[in-house]
Amino acid sequence: MKKRISIIGVGLMGGSLGMALRRRGWRVTGIGRNAARLRTAKTLGAIDEATTDLAEGVRDADAVVLAVPVEEVIPLGKKIRPRVKPGAFVIDVGSVKGAVVRAFSGWPDFVGSHPMCGSEKTGVRNARPDLYRGAACLLTPTGKTSKSALAKAESLWKSVGAKPLRLSPEEHDRRVALVSHLPHLLAEALVRTATEGDGKNWAPRTAAGSFLDATRVASADPALWAQIFAMNRASVRRAAAAFRRALAALLSRGPGERELREVVRRRNLFGGLS
Amino acid sequence: MKKRISIIGVGLMGGSLGMALRRRGWRVTGIGRNAARLRTAKTLGAIDEATTDLAEGVRDADAVVLAVPVEEVIPLGKKIRPRVKPGAFVIDVGSVKGAVVRAFSGWPDFVGSHPMCGSEKTGVRNARPDLYRGAACLLTPTGKTSKSALAKAESLWKSVGAKPLRLSPEEHDRRVALVSHLPHLLAEALVRTATEGDGKNWAPRTAAGSFLDATRVASADPALWAQIFAMNRASVRRAAAAFRRALAALLSRGPGERELREVVRRRNLFGGLS
Repeated sequence: MKKRISIIGVGLMGGSLGMALRRRGWRVTGIGRNAARLRTAKTLGAIDEATTDLAEGVRDADAVVLAVPVEEVIPLGKKIRPRVKPGAFVIDVGSVKGAVVRAFSGWPDFVGSHPMCGSEKTGVRNARPDLYRGAACLLTPTGKTSKSALAKAESLWKSVGAKPLRLSPEEHDRRVALVSHLPHLLAEALVRTATEGDGKNWAPRTAAGSFLDATRVASADPALWAQIFAMNRASVRRAAAAFRRALAALLSRGPGERELREVVRRRNLFGGLS
Repeated sequence: MKKRISIIGVGLMGGSLGMALRRRGWRVTGIGRNAARLRTAKTLGAIDEATTDLAEGVRDADAVVLAVPVEEVIPLGKKIRPRVKPGAFVIDVGSVKGAVVRAFSGWPDFVGSHPMCGSEKTGVRNARPDLYRGAACLLTPTGKTSKSALAKAESLWKSVGAKPLRLSPEEHDRRVALVSHLPHLLAEALVRTATEGDGKNWAPRTAAGSFLDATRVASADPALWAQIFAMNRASVRRAAAAFRRALAALLSRGPGERELREVVRRRNLFGGLS
């Protein structure tokens, strides 16, 4: 019999995971509040079956994925925990880990997960089976996490092409603030700066590719990002403070060619990803 | 007989212009210091003929383009001015206009031009005939600019698909600092922040698309960007100060969902460009 995984929230992340896992032999149950959206997910091949009944959906599943906005992970996890069968493992895909892992510290079968991929475009219509291929997937087990659950979670992420990396929830939040939440915040601030005052009228007609690239993430879902900033506030503030120091240093010194050359060299370390 | 245009500096910008203008009936002469690079430009269809002799190259041309790094525009313009034939018009493609237009204030045939397109990839091998299509092209005539030269320059830019917009050199430098130089500076500062300390080791393995998009321009030519920052320092500083205020405001208040929704709305004004 096929192993069964229940994915709660079949949007971009959950839908892409469903598509990838179905191809690897899982039976995928989609759980959500909106029946029409679940039908779309089934039509698109993201899930095998759907239900709007949370308790029924997770019962007897071998694995459960909380693929919901990060603010909903804790209340939803608390709801399903008594319903999940013994030995099943539970993962999430959220951008913030400290608060979530603290809330679930007495739950050995929960393995905090954060795949470093996504898009400013949300919803199952933008899902694709190769979304996770080549992406780092940050896992945040603690001393209390079940070895078996951790091994199964790592194996699941590897099977869809992601590269699991273990680190503490606190270190996760610090790093992700720097490489994901901070770029997002800068994009927001840049849009505000360029469209202030008369900029509203001329900036959209004047800006070139560099501006569009730099602000692409600013068109992502505001509700989701407000949650992320709220849940990782301390790390985001520290990252922003470091950024302001770096910007001030560049401005005060020039910036000169030698300094920019060093930045380009470091940027090229990221080249393997693009 | 075909009209002849001489392009000094056959890189990404000059080469793309050459490709586009040859298709529109111009004979294109490429001028540069490096004979091998000029041969490549000819092979790629960017120019009809080449010379390393500046005086010979501009003599009898109906139009001249200074498509060189922005720091070289002023000295080069001064060199060619006595050699250009009466009635020929001269344009540049540089990112900074105040200093250039001041230096050429007694030269009615010079029309400062800045097409808002480009790439972090430089050189004629990345040139393409449609680079200018749909891009704004900022023109900075003064009261002393010849009406005929201005009309010819606008007609040339329109013929390659660009949209000419007239504005003062000072207003140009202010706007471009906001939508181009500032995004570049932020990308540099973001790379520095994320790769500080131990970030060098983990950031390249962890970062996702949002980081790569936000920092793409940081891989552009450092020599060129050091010149741009140096020549537009005052406006870049003012843009950076406005950005720091916007960032501080976002950080102090949350940022909340309503605020982010307004940013997304403004970002969508740029949608027609992507």
